[in-house]
Amino acid sequence: MSKSLRIVIVGGVAAGPKAAARARRCDPQAEITVLEKGSYISYAGCGLPYLIGGKVPDIKDLLATPVGVLRDSNFFQAVKGIRVLTGKEAIAIDRVQRIVKVRDVATSQEETYPYDRLVLATGAVPVRPSLPGLDLKKVFVLRHPGDGLQILASLEENKARRAVLVGAGAIGLEVAEALVERGLEVTVIEALEQVFPGWLDFEMGAMLEGHLISKGVRVRTGERVSHFLGNQEGRLEKVRTDKGEYPADLAILAIGVRPNVELARQAGLEIGPTGAIKVDPYLRTSDENIYAGGDCAEVYHRLLKRPVFVSSGQIANIHGRIIGTNITGGQVAYQGTVGTGVAKVFDYTVGCTGLTEAVARKEGYEVVTALAPSIDHAHYYPEAKFVGLKMVADQSSGRILGVQVVGPGDAAKRLDAAATAITLGATVFDLTQLNLGYSPPYSTAIDVLINAAWVLENKITGLAKTVTPMEVQELTARAEDFLLLDVRTPTELQEVRLKHPKVMAIPLGKLREKAKELPKDKYYIPFCKFSLRGYEAQKILEGLGFPQVKFMEGGWVHWPYGLETEPQKAG
Amino acid sequence: MSKSLRIVIVGGVAAGPKAAARARRCDPQAEITVLEKGSYISYAGCGLPYLIGGKVPDIKDLLATPVGVLRDSNFFQAVKGIRVLTGKEAIAIDRVQRIVKVRDVATSQEETYPYDRLVLATGAVPVRPSLPGLDLKKVFVLRHPGDGLQILASLEENKARRAVLVGAGAIGLEVAEALVERGLEVTVIEALEQVFPGWLDFEMGAMLEGHLISKGVRVRTGERVSHFLGNQEGRLEKVRTDKGEYPADLAILAIGVRPNVELARQAGLEIGPTGAIKVDPYLRTSDENIYAGGDCAEVYHRLLKRPVFVSSGQIANIHGRIIGTNITGGQVAYQGTVGTGVAKVFDYTVGCTGLTEAVARKEGYEVVTALAPSIDHAHYYPEAKFVGLKMVADQSSGRILGVQVVGPGDAAKRLDAAATAITLGATVFDLTQLNLGYSPPYSTAIDVLINAAWVLENKITGLAKTVTPMEVQELTARAEDFLLLDVRTPTELQEVRLKHPKVMAIPLGKLREKAKELPKDKYYIPFCKFSLRGYEAQKILEGLGFPQVKFMEGGWVHWPYGLETEPQKAG
Repeated sequence: MSKSLRIVIVGGVAAGPKAAARARRCDPQAEITVLEKGSYISYAGCGLPYLIGGKVPDIKDLLATPVGVLRDSNFFQAVKGIRVLTGKEAIAIDRVQRIVKVRDVATSQEETYPYDRLVLATGAVPVRPSLPGLDLKKVFVLRHPGDGLQILASLEENKARRAVLVGAGAIGLEVAEALVERGLEVTVIEALEQVFPGWLDFEMGAMLEGHLISKGVRVRTGERVSHFLGNQEGRLEKVRTDKGEYPADLAILAIGVRPNVELARQAGLEIGPTGAIKVDPYLRTSDENIYAGGDCAEVYHRLLKRPVFVSSGQIANIHGRIIGTNITGGQVAYQGTVGTGVAKVFDYTVGCTGLTEAVARKEGYEVVTALAPSIDHAHYYPEAKFVGLKMVADQSSGRILGVQVVGPGDAAKRLDAAATAITLGATVFDLTQLNLGYSPPYSTAIDVLINAAWVLENKITGLAKTVTPMEVQELTARAEDFLLLDVRTPTELQEVRLKHPKVMAIPLGKLREKAKELPKDKYYIPFCKFSLRGYEAQKILEGLGFPQVKFMEGGWVHWPYGLETEPQKAG
Repeated sequence: MSKSLRIVIVGGVAAGPKAAARARRCDPQAEITVLEKGSYISYAGCGLPYLIGGKVPDIKDLLATPVGVLRDSNFFQAVKGIRVLTGKEAIAIDRVQRIVKVRDVATSQEETYPYDRLVLATGAVPVRPSLPGLDLKKVFVLRHPGDGLQILASLEENKARRAVLVGAGAIGLEVAEALVERGLEVTVIEALEQVFPGWLDFEMGAMLEGHLISKGVRVRTGERVSHFLGNQEGRLEKVRTDKGEYPADLAILAIGVRPNVELARQAGLEIGPTGAIKVDPYLRTSDENIYAGGDCAEVYHRLLKRPVFVSSGQIANIHGRIIGTNITGGQVAYQGTVGTGVAKVFDYTVGCTGLTEAVARKEGYEVVTALAPSIDHAHYYPEAKFVGLKMVADQSSGRILGVQVVGPGDAAKRLDAAATAITLGATVFDLTQLNLGYSPPYSTAIDVLINAAWVLENKITGLAKTVTPMEVQELTARAEDFLLLDVRTPTELQEVRLKHPKVMAIPLGKLREKAKELPKDKYYIPFCKFSLRGYEAQKILEGLGFPQVKFMEGGWVHWPYGLETEPQKAG
């Protein structure tokens, strides 16, 4: 080309700057312009909860490179030869003339930017339901650095004591932790019946909820906020729900985001059924000269085999890189997400990859699942902690559909290996023989993930016969005749016990002997801490001719219906 | 079957007990006997270095279950219905009569054990070279609990001050850490030219060596022990090598293990070219009624597509489970290892999976590699640390052949994801789009592993033009005309600099401007800390028409030839 390619990018946070930087590397001659409505560019939005909590001492840390260089317009010009203009709102696209119309936020003057290739990276905006009082002072969302600074200022000005967080997803719970660390009383209100409804099945959510409660967070699930009530100065005083009222010095709405597609819609670009901009595998919109990526664009899901809407800084960067390649003559296809997410919530790590059991069933899969907690490294090496883990697989093929993790141990490692496995189409049989790094400080000889695959395979082959905690609860509700058999040691029994009227305790080491005294016509449900010994007990009783024995998956660690001692020694 | 299956298992440490336990679960009626020559069974040999270092306070911790139940013969009988006999050395197999001959270690009396299925899990024994003085007091190996107890006793008795470790693999370096923590002066002597020769390529080994030295360990590579010299009481005084002498109060040989196959060999079972017992995918030996697993058996390697010898507690357990299944009527094939290993060495994690570059080349692969260090989580979240990473891929297919990690950051997580990827046949292109868990406490938006795939892909597509540190060293040795261009900030320059005469410093932000003053006919080699900015600088200069620019992979973090300041602030 004799003439330089003119690239215009709308959006300066994640996918936009990444597309720009990649395009520059692929085409040193291109004229690249990034237009950003706001005043911050290329900021780390995911770091905002830690700004509020104080782990990130200064907003500048979220705006700078790892070596402290501010990522501003000068940086982009000097380092990357990219023109980044802030305070420039793209208001229309003339697709025939290939021109973006822009309004300068400060002066309201209109400008035009011609393009050969246009990239839409307009991101997402927080969902704001139409609730009375939403505009009161001290009712916040948390998306932009400005939001974070406002919340911080508000905490300091007012000596805020009580906070209500609406929405129990990653941002809501990360902020819950931040505010508890700052000494506030925190209530989390979630409309659905559990915390992290998008990531976790019920029993995994219950495990996390237990941890939140142990940290002093008031958790209200299945409760809907109806009003924000203020005082005469228009400042929030209370949050009202369908079940009660909560005095609050501040409230933060964290019920999700929706793709910001107004510009695309007005330009007549196709919007997908998810509400995000429809793109082909090359991240091209319905106009071949316009690409879209990051939160504003649909994201292909490898397991669902259709586009979804997700908000992810990781996907935004991967999208940006692909777009930068493709608008400069490359042809890379985006292969899709598997829906991986991870968050730190107090001392627990929580994460998911693939599909939850609930979603997999809704999608029509015949699923087999396992609750298979384990410790994160050798028990004799200091500080071994448990990882709660649920694995979901397709019954007929054994293909892994999803993995969820919750617990104080190193769950993030298992999550990433699982995400890799799911991406590459692994079956449970593949995972039974994974060759992971084994050394006492890092894992047990049979890692958490391999162990879970063993449990699941044992279920598939019929060796392991199990009931879930929820099934035990149903049996209880139906007043069926069964006995929960706690096969732990007497020392363990002193530390924590299941809250359930039908528990009988026989240590595993005595079971073969004591079995002689047990009536054979009963339905036995053995368990222990993780139910590895529960499984052993099932096999023992089965081998001795007991006709009805199933162990309870996950042990007391996954029991969501109450324990008699707080599991402080759960490690 | 009306008659119970008689299963005899020789070896009571890892594969043996696992095979026994699995067989019991699959066949409640089988008569299962485990014969162990020693007095300890089912112990955690990998924990011995931590016993010596004091992190494991008591040998019993290595012999007990996570809830403190001793895994002795009573345990196996009571819980698993398995007869475990210690102090019973299997001395011959009559394959026609299907009888194992056993000598009682205490009484020397011979006994016989008939079998329907025999399992050999005889493990491995430390390699003991025929060196003068090997039998001196205070010259140890570390394999059995007894070895650990002897070393511990010796440390306490003698007030040992100086230790020599022979062999710089996992056990040698884990013990080095343990002894330094106990206040000893430690010298590690390794015959090959680098530490961890089995796991790491040269430059990765150099990175770890730097860390060892910073911890006060004296590292002597390329040096061969020739004599252990003692005093008149027959106690070690010095270790002599081909290059010098080292006074020593104790020495520990950790130069590897070899498969213990005498029993199999005498019985006429086929031994493979690796020296371990040859087995088919079902882990059957050349006798269809005899199986072998764990360290004594060959292990199929997925990438090498042939059996290898490896010593691994993880593989032993996986083998044991497969054997337990197959001897009771199942038919599960072992799919193979990818050679994954991980170890903690002081504050660094070191690991490998797949093939090193050196091995891959030896195997005839055309390889492409990348040194791509990065930080383990968001830089603004506290305690971000770097992970040094080398990725090796097949040039033509892009298939990932190997990943090595060394560094203070969370390298184990990336290793396990890489091991999973390699097991499932991933290409570098697959890894460029991995959907891993992203949240500031756990990763950067583009994880270490994804970043490495990006670097490698950029090399494959020709966008990134690089030299390795070793190539820079060769250029230096040949006195070629080139300039190393350090593009870091002035603050960074104060902390650490490359020890090299040809370094010129221009911060990245000034490069476009200063480039006008640079002669175009020079060969420029930009770099920074990790060489992300080095890459940027390459693209800038290339874009400005400089004909000869390659960035140095890995930045100063991977520079093995000396730094001007100790990289204490490397995090």
